[in-house]
Amino acid sequence: MISNRVAIYPGTFDPPTYGHINIIERGLNVFEKIIIAVAEDSVKDPLFTAKERVEIIKEIFPGKKNVTVKVFNGLLVNYARKVNAKVILRGLRTVADFEYELQMALANKKLDGEIETVFMMTEEYLSYFSSSLIKEIAKLGGDPAGMVPEIVARKLKKKIQG
Amino acid sequence: MISNRVAIYPGTFDPPTYGHINIIERGLNVFEKIIIAVAEDSVKDPLFTAKERVEIIKEIFPGKKNVTVKVFNGLLVNYARKVNAKVILRGLRTVADFEYELQMALANKKLDGEIETVFMMTEEYLSYFSSSLIKEIAKLGGDPAGMVPEIVARKLKKKIQG
Amino acid sequence: MISNRVAIYPGTFDPPTYGHINIIERGLNVFEKIIIAVAEDSVKDPLFTAKERVEIIKEIFPGKKNVTVKVFNGLLVNYARKVNAKVILRGLRTVADFEYELQMALANKKLDGEIETVFMMTEEYLSYFSSSLIKEIAKLGGDPAGMVPEIVARKLKKKIQG
Amino acid sequence: MISNRVAIYPGTFDPPTYGHINIIERGLNVFEKIIIAVAEDSVKDPLFTAKERVEIIKEIFPGKKNVTVKVFNGLLVNYARKVNAKVILRGLRTVADFEYELQMALANKKLDGEIETVFMMTEEYLSYFSSSLIKEIAKLGGDPAGMVPEIVARKLKKKIQG
Amino acid sequence: MISNRVAIYPGTFDPPTYGHINIIERGLNVFEKIIIAVAEDSVKDPLFTAKERVEIIKEIFPGKKNVTVKVFNGLLVNYARKVNAKVILRGLRTVADFEYELQMALANKKLDGEIETVFMMTEEYLSYFSSSLIKEIAKLGGDPAGMVPEIVARKLKKKIQG
Amino acid sequence: MISNRVAIYPGTFDPPTYGHINIIERGLNVFEKIIIAVAEDSVKDPLFTAKERVEIIKEIFPGKKNVTVKVFNGLLVNYARKVNAKVILRGLRTVADFEYELQMALANKKLDGEIETVFMMTEEYLSYFSSSLIKEIAKLGGDPAGMVPEIVARKLKKKIQG
Repeated sequence: MISNRVAIYPGTFDPPTYGHINIIERGLNVFEKIIIAVAEDSVKDPLFTAKERVEIIKEIFPGKKNVTVKVFNGLLVNYARKVNAKVILRGLRTVADFEYELQMALANKKLDGEIETVFMMTEEYLSYFSSSLIKEIAKLGGDPAGMVPEIVARKLKKKIQG
Repeated sequence: MISNRVAIYPGTFDPPTYGHINIIERGLNVFEKIIIAVAEDSVKDPLFTAKERVEIIKEIFPGKKNVTVKVFNGLLVNYARKVNAKVILRGLRTVADFEYELQMALANKKLDGEIETVFMMTEEYLSYFSSSLIKEIAKLGGDPAGMVPEIVARKLKKKIQG
Repeated sequence: MISNRVAIYPGTFDPPTYGHINIIERGLNVFEKIIIAVAEDSVKDPLFTAKERVEIIKEIFPGKKNVTVKVFNGLLVNYARKVNAKVILRGLRTVADFEYELQMALANKKLDGEIETVFMMTEEYLSYFSSSLIKEIAKLGGDPAGMVPEIVARKLKKKIQG
Repeated sequence: MISNRVAIYPGTFDPPTYGHINIIERGLNVFEKIIIAVAEDSVKDPLFTAKERVEIIKEIFPGKKNVTVKVFNGLLVNYARKVNAKVILRGLRTVADFEYELQMALANKKLDGEIETVFMMTEEYLSYFSSSLIKEIAKLGGDPAGMVPEIVARKLKKKIQG
Repeated sequence: MISNRVAIYPGTFDPPTYGHINIIERGLNVFEKIIIAVAEDSVKDPLFTAKERVEIIKEIFPGKKNVTVKVFNGLLVNYARKVNAKVILRGLRTVADFEYELQMALANKKLDGEIETVFMMTEEYLSYFSSSLIKEIAKLGGDPAGMVPEIVARKLKKKIQG
Repeated sequence: MISNRVAIYPGTFDPPTYGHINIIERGLNVFEKIIIAVAEDSVKDPLFTAKERVEIIKEIFPGKKNVTVKVFNGLLVNYARKVNAKVILRGLRTVADFEYELQMALANKKLDGEIETVFMMTEEYLSYFSSSLIKEIAKLGGDPAGMVPEIVARKLKKKIQG
């Protein structure tokens, strides 16, 4: 049965950032279980495969029973229903986020009136670094250490420097 | 014990609008209980007393067991803790809201790290009318019927026309 | 009969700025007649009386047959209907303007479905100076010449220096 | 002769949404004639050809004499002048729209000082769904019925499911 | 002689926050001297007198030769010129700040074309707490420790609890 | 030695606009030397080669000893350090700019804590035209004269009309 104790946290996570981690950890204060839903097809040329992204997230939350990481495809509300999650959890960081998220929340409500979207504000200044910025810096030779969790920094260097 | 199944929904509600009602109804899809916390001192010259505002809200949600309406004073996180609510629920409507709410959420987290703020987006165009606008229109002789619930329109007319 | 060739341009105009003038002049490219509606009660302590504000605007547009300047009170849509204007004209300058104006346009549409609000963007950098800023500068002893039309600068100095 | 009674309403309309329809219908309250100008080349891979988009819009406004639908190429102000429209009509929905539209309005004014841009605010929450979002949902298998006019939903399904 | 090595940092500082301190410290990386200009009359009912605010800032930057703290009145550009500062330094935190500051920078440039305004972005999440929010929390009985420097927290408690 | 009298002004400048020129000229009121750093790889298909962009900028500031124009690659903070510039100078025009620039300034501070980013607001309405808009207009056959410096208009026409 669809439960309001389970929240789905969807995203590309290419790679996961401190912003993502902050939302997941605080989401666990509100919900009993968070299903991290890694969107397989959401960006054209992801740096990491969906499988790699799942693995990185699992390494960040090792052994946490109330965190599940899955790859998903297709419409988010369909996937939420499939995994019995009644709530979509999203982070808000900027005004630009806000307008996009408002549109998505309205659309998802229209597609499935039973599923609700709730938002949390990312709360540390490290949360300001988006996945795109992190990748751009790493590609230009910058050291991402200190801007992302250590495991992400290591994987980024390996992926980019080959 | 403080529970993440109980959310506190604070505000001035002078008067309550469709925006407030939308957030409360949808909040009930996510939480087991909503405590509507009417801020007694938050505006300088409220049109309705805190007691009147509580009564109006009670008339809007008659007999709903999972909705409680209370007056509160002082620091919100203290009140949340007092009523065992771990979650503060807030609505987002505009970019201006967003920046103010971000600041408040960070401050409340700093004041009490155990209490989380979650946001929902108001979803209908009637939600766009703020309490201030509604009062301004009513004071200028405009008919608030259709812009607020019928009970609010009636009380507004009575209060303003005497 | 209510006409879509007549636009009402409401405001406080305490005092009129280059931004206001820009909207009026360009509004005349779109509409046959502009009724400038000076809100009598809209600010608590206006620097100029409504009558003085009307006179200043008349001096800025001397002998223009398609510009009328009037004082108004009460609900804007009622006044628009009274003067047979089907269109409310408003200028947009900033994001903060935008969100306020969106709310007002929705409210006016709800109050009188036949009256439409249209917006024009102010187009010169001098338009960036609001009436409040101009007054603040003049009160601090700054010379408003060059920031507002000459007639406004003269009246401001006289009013403030006594 | 170029007329301020004729407004051109330019866009990609791939596909038309409730937001577009709302602006066109309300624009007809202000102007005598609206020329809907479908931009042929404005997006890289339109889902519908310009000809198909024209046909869909015509089906939405059947037999309306004061609505004309045309394909256009090149500079918008040149096309407006060619069809004797003195006014460009645009809808505003979000803050992001606002900043883009401000820049375009200033540029068009610079290119042809006689042509004015006026804006109207889209007014229903269904207007929040952009063409891009609608297409994204349809491609992911979501049912666009209820989010766009029926004719658009039907054409979308046919186009995407083949 | 007016120098571009000296920046004036104006504000109300009622009380100073981590955001102010962050801008001052980083401003010293760019300029040789910062003159902190405490606006005497800028708010209606300041919690601290201008003299108290000067003292608090001096306690925060004890013995720093390149930091001067002064009270000022009247037009900022006049004061900047009087103290030979060619540059006004301002912090940016939010979109709402941005639009206000843009207007002020344009106005000051118009009033004195030789004086430039430069901005720095506040960079830590503690910078998010504005003076107004800090005062509001303290007045409601919240403990400002951890949200402002210790000296500010102490003075706030003393002032409010009497 | 790294100097806070030297500012680096990075960008794509494809082509330079009045906005860029405004920031450079006013930056020279604050700093002793501006190094204009033309990003070689920052856009996918630049209209002008990096070498051409350098030449155009040099023609706009002929014989100015305190303006240097260089091509750069890689991480901006590394380049700034290489040319001994302690300050990155950036222009702000819109809210969208603001949020992007805030993120970049935080990232650059994290990458090299000694280098500071300062911002100036572009101040004329001609500054509103971005490089992308200018190119779009020129490609559609619009005449960019009056929207960009004459040298830029001439080069644009030549490049596009072949």
